[in-house]
Amino acid sequence: MAPSSFTEEGGTAERTQHSEQEPVPQRLLSAATRLFAEQGFETTSVQQIVDAAGVTKGAMYHYFGSKDDLLYEIYARVLRVQMARMEQAADSSESVERRLRAVAADVVVTTVAYLDDTVIFFRSMHLLHPDKQAEVRAQRRRYHERVRQLIEEGQRTGVFRTDRSPELVVDFFFGAVHHLGTWYRRDGPMSGQQVGEQFADLLLDALRA
Amino acid sequence: MAPSSFTEEGGTAERTQHSEQEPVPQRLLSAATRLFAEQGFETTSVQQIVDAAGVTKGAMYHYFGSKDDLLYEIYARVLRVQMARMEQAADSSESVERRLRAVAADVVVTTVAYLDDTVIFFRSMHLLHPDKQAEVRAQRRRYHERVRQLIEEGQRTGVFRTDRSPELVVDFFFGAVHHLGTWYRRDGPMSGQQVGEQFADLLLDALRA
Repeated sequence: MAPSSFTEEGGTAERTQHSEQEPVPQRLLSAATRLFAEQGFETTSVQQIVDAAGVTKGAMYHYFGSKDDLLYEIYARVLRVQMARMEQAADSSESVERRLRAVAADVVVTTVAYLDDTVIFFRSMHLLHPDKQAEVRAQRRRYHERVRQLIEEGQRTGVFRTDRSPELVVDFFFGAVHHLGTWYRRDGPMSGQQVGEQFADLLLDALRA
Repeated sequence: MAPSSFTEEGGTAERTQHSEQEPVPQRLLSAATRLFAEQGFETTSVQQIVDAAGVTKGAMYHYFGSKDDLLYEIYARVLRVQMARMEQAADSSESVERRLRAVAADVVVTTVAYLDDTVIFFRSMHLLHPDKQAEVRAQRRRYHERVRQLIEEGQRTGVFRTDRSPELVVDFFFGAVHHLGTWYRRDGPMSGQQVGEQFADLLLDALRA
């Protein structure tokens, strides 16, 4: 899959560096991400966020109803990127094996590109209003279901072994992906693309008939 | 591997039910686990914990220096159980494939048995004093290194394929395990043992030569 307009450099790091040139919602999200990372979601006040973003509380409430909305949007934005890229790869005309491989590698690349956002969200999502938690879960479920369909398609067409539960394989693989934030280092020896290729290999090894 | 004295029923659920009969440190840990789960680590006070455990602050400070110590011990206790069981399985006289399989299944079983403790710890470990965080990481690294050695042994002896990075496979597998708390339900269709068997299969599929 071509990486289209998205590059790893377009992730968190760059967004933080150029915050002054960004539109207000992005500046608020960048400031909130940094503060939630540094001092935790609970102990960060709306005042600190607007100060760090250089905007007024009024400007913030024009875009976000609450601190909850900022935390929600930090991850919703990642999910939108991942969903769009996943659908592009999943719906291509490649073989099901190549499509699943592309999807698996890509979700690692995007997770690494938005690693801070992901770490912050997983740490604090239990503090979100239950409605918002349910909304994120529903979106993620849509993502997982599309991946499960690819596994089922491969099983139906004899490319993948049929003695593996597609649902459990999806939980297994995305568990590994969601946990990248605990060990992956940007300044480490492997790029997101390299980890993505290897994770995709491990997934395909466990499925190939 | 025989489950020895450990059973899933010996996990969090039972410990909470029989709290009145438990020694003071266990009562404090049970109360802290429940409160951290219900209202978060940051917003739970030492006073709330000692009230819930039915002990005095003096009694608590006899065993734990701070709220940090309680959070640390919640997970250190899980790690000690996992480490002891892992070493037993890893050092047995079985084939390397069977030893790795037993270790992989067991870490799922113990994670599910102590699921609340694990979820709470991963949510809040970033709030621990850096020394304590480093201590937990060092302990977990010892665990991961023993598993990596098993993979390397299998690669040396021709049982496992050699084109997989043992380190990355370890991170991949334990990522999936550490993430069980986000989707596994005790009242769901699968026991910890069943998930453990299937996770072990997926790991071995990705390694077998």
